[in-house]
Amino acid sequence: MRLRAIGHLETPFASIADCPRNGRQPDPAPDCVAVVEPAFQPGLAGIEGFSHLLLFYWLGPQSDALTITPPFDGRERGVFATRAPVRPNPIGMSVVAFAGLDGPGRLLVRYLDCVDGTALLDIKPYLASTDAEPEAAMGWLAPHRTPRPGKR
Amino acid sequence: MRLRAIGHLETPFASIADCPRNGRQPDPAPDCVAVVEPAFQPGLAGIEGFSHLLLFYWLGPQSDALTITPPFDGRERGVFATRAPVRPNPIGMSVVAFAGLDGPGRLLVRYLDCVDGTALLDIKPYLASTDAEPEAAMGWLAPHRTPRPGKR
Repeated sequence: MRLRAIGHLETPFASIADCPRNGRQPDPAPDCVAVVEPAFQPGLAGIEGFSHLLLFYWLGPQSDALTITPPFDGRERGVFATRAPVRPNPIGMSVVAFAGLDGPGRLLVRYLDCVDGTALLDIKPYLASTDAEPEAAMGWLAPHRTPRPGKR
Repeated sequence: MRLRAIGHLETPFASIADCPRNGRQPDPAPDCVAVVEPAFQPGLAGIEGFSHLLLFYWLGPQSDALTITPPFDGRERGVFATRAPVRPNPIGMSVVAFAGLDGPGRLLVRYLDCVDGTALLDIKPYLASTDAEPEAAMGWLAPHRTPRPGKR
């Protein structure tokens, strides 16, 4: 199972130390760009009209660590119970707001939290009918919930 | 960028022809199991208490096709504007309801749509604060929206 970059992500975060805890933490959320290489741009046909997308990207290097202690919590947690980049298959995924194309293969998005230049792996349309669970219980992360501006 | 299986998915779908269009289409949704290999089970610590999870799995083989014609639509679409398994990096992702562990490394879940035995790549907690966009616009897929039982 091998992956290939289809493009990269442009964000204002030059290093991991600059990255926010998640893409909803900065207010206002900065404008970012998902850049799709010319060879893969035919795959974007029909993407207009979706207000939100799922972006998949590579958080590497791979790690063998299976637990981490989050800086904001202090208790050791299994990596599958966290969104930390440290995991056996470091695939990152963000739900982003999509504001349209700014030139061929340049998708204007918000709510990314990764380093500038991160390798882009996949783009899928966000479907509220299968992806939205606004009442989901957040387990140990509930006290650390990121508030949404203008929402409860 | 190489991936390794951390386990596999048990579903009632023996072949691709048996798979539903998405995991919300069957009503009631069948019980499935995400099986995590013993070597990776320490990564599950703290996963109790989340009502929903994101499961990432391998939809391979890889494909060079960048457009498909969905069977329910009839117009050619770019793969990044669809949830089809055909894509440059065939990573599948489903938002699943999580009903707890049924033995070590056996996660009881609903809303999978993939073939029995599919390789599991990653598990992340679903966070309504960053992942839920119930009002998202669904582009060309809007007329094909899967209704939610008991919801609008």
